[in-house]
Amino acid sequence: MILTVHTETPYQILMERGSLDCVGTEAAKIFGPGTRAAVVTDSNVGKTYAQRVVSSLNSAGFQARVFSFPAGEEHKRLSVIADMYTAFSEQGLTRSDFVVALGGGVTGDMAGFAAATYLRGIRVLQIPTSLLAQIDSSVGGKTGVDLPEGKNLVGAFHQPSLVLIDPDTLRTLPPLFFADGMGEAIKYGCIRNHTLFSLIARGDITAKRDIEPVIASCVNIKRELVERDELDNGDRMLLNFGHTFGHALEKLHGYQGLTHGEAVGIGMVMISRCSEAAGITEPGTADKIAGVLQAYGLPVSDRSDPQRIAQAARLDKKSRGNSISLVLLRKIGESFLHPLPHEKLGPFMQVLS
Amino acid sequence: MILTVHTETPYQILMERGSLDCVGTEAAKIFGPGTRAAVVTDSNVGKTYAQRVVSSLNSAGFQARVFSFPAGEEHKRLSVIADMYTAFSEQGLTRSDFVVALGGGVTGDMAGFAAATYLRGIRVLQIPTSLLAQIDSSVGGKTGVDLPEGKNLVGAFHQPSLVLIDPDTLRTLPPLFFADGMGEAIKYGCIRNHTLFSLIARGDITAKRDIEPVIASCVNIKRELVERDELDNGDRMLLNFGHTFGHALEKLHGYQGLTHGEAVGIGMVMISRCSEAAGITEPGTADKIAGVLQAYGLPVSDRSDPQRIAQAARLDKKSRGNSISLVLLRKIGESFLHPLPHEKLGPFMQVLS
Repeated sequence: MILTVHTETPYQILMERGSLDCVGTEAAKIFGPGTRAAVVTDSNVGKTYAQRVVSSLNSAGFQARVFSFPAGEEHKRLSVIADMYTAFSEQGLTRSDFVVALGGGVTGDMAGFAAATYLRGIRVLQIPTSLLAQIDSSVGGKTGVDLPEGKNLVGAFHQPSLVLIDPDTLRTLPPLFFADGMGEAIKYGCIRNHTLFSLIARGDITAKRDIEPVIASCVNIKRELVERDELDNGDRMLLNFGHTFGHALEKLHGYQGLTHGEAVGIGMVMISRCSEAAGITEPGTADKIAGVLQAYGLPVSDRSDPQRIAQAARLDKKSRGNSISLVLLRKIGESFLHPLPHEKLGPFMQVLS
Repeated sequence: MILTVHTETPYQILMERGSLDCVGTEAAKIFGPGTRAAVVTDSNVGKTYAQRVVSSLNSAGFQARVFSFPAGEEHKRLSVIADMYTAFSEQGLTRSDFVVALGGGVTGDMAGFAAATYLRGIRVLQIPTSLLAQIDSSVGGKTGVDLPEGKNLVGAFHQPSLVLIDPDTLRTLPPLFFADGMGEAIKYGCIRNHTLFSLIARGDITAKRDIEPVIASCVNIKRELVERDELDNGDRMLLNFGHTFGHALEKLHGYQGLTHGEAVGIGMVMISRCSEAAGITEPGTADKIAGVLQAYGLPVSDRSDPQRIAQAARLDKKSRGNSISLVLLRKIGESFLHPLPHEKLGPFMQVLS
């Protein structure tokens, strides 16, 4: 699959099994010979894939060096970004050189942010190796890093020069992480594509079986929304379906115990129960979503106090002034933005109590 | 004076004596009532001006809070940026709120960078209080922070929503800092405006006398170049006249002992001597520049070894691959880009030995 994303500077998304060995030849179509590449990866992914990527880059005439940081969301912080800057500087990266983000969402977000800000921006090639990163975070140019005060509170918009997806990397993904990505895939079906939702609802998608059409559909929805709203002020916010409560749940759990996909899944069910109760969403929608989530081993409810969820949601970075933009469904495959003043959030969530 | 800068999102530059007391009313034309403002300033400027700015913002209905950091280039570092993020977060800034950068170049660069990256970008109002910041760094959207490995190695392009220049703030500027700014003003004359050069060459411009037409001319040149080249890949690089060797000198002096304006001044004289020797620049140009610099008490030469200057220049962030883009003059008021392979830099500089 080849898709072109028509942002200010257009770029391609390539998906092909085994494409990890073609990184060099693909990069050579974009970057001049002799260019330097900093391959940013974490300790898990690096062990498995960094050498293949470096070999491929070297064969194509690039000087590649690996920067590895300890795996885990807890390392998504400014001090690791500072270490990346130092490594880039020591490698002598100039504005014609590039960064390769090899890994999951944490790696893509951080390597992307470091690339966005080093020398006021050098180019980045995204090689997402988790399902979540392949269908979501690697496309669209959002980069970020956590603060002690909250997730992704710091970041930049920085579109990649190329996104290269090798679905074979999903074979080494732990089952929990695969399910995590399926949570987001279900979200894409919910907001925009009933056919995709039905495909996933079969319940038998695995890393080896039928994952490619799922990735392709998700990426294509993301591409379409990013093109229409590069800076996330309008339609792109539909991608936040399930995220308002999802982020709140992650926060209430101290970012432990619930994965992002799990939290978003619960968030989708919760908000759909609220909007069904408000007469906005087709009855039965929340149950349908819950059914598909459960088919992939994902949770569909949480014991957190709805009032505390509401409180955390008000502090979400999507808040603007005194209202919050909720994403609701009319039915599976159809979504829209629904701004709600902060004080109406409690009553809207009453059905959850 | 009111100028509009036609970047992707246009913004205005206002210059008026006493305008520090109009920050609130001007901000109210851009930001909604009740919006929060984080006023970022350093310990020197804050003492003198923060209260006036906060009062003006409060009177216009904004909730303003001051974040102050210790004055000095040595505090232009990532740890201070991290402190700003924490302060913004504690103040509860959302995407509809804004940052006010009140101070010289260091404050503008850092507050601008923090604004560019907090929540992936919130708006910033620049209130430059040094001559250098008024004529140069506050316009054009370049933001940055130093690394141990070099100056401004990290940054972002983030255009301000408004630049408000109050020339009266220059009255409290120490003489050395005024001269520092005049070094850059002379540069503007050199690259683009012979009339401006002649005005400054009178040798009697002070904070109280005739500084306004100088600021206005400089800002207008900057505006024009920024509009033609927002991301600094072409004409905007003309602004680097004197900077290639200037940055190298600052580095060789360990960023102590030479101010930025002093270093740029010496850099302009040095590179013009080289390009005169190469038959590119009208003979006598370097001496003319040196004469005007001396009239404002600025140095025109340095004892650093030209080979070490060349070496440091090759590592400049303007380097792309194996060549460096020099800015040369045909004569006073006319400049152009002159790319030079790294290995030719030594011979080009031979006249300096």
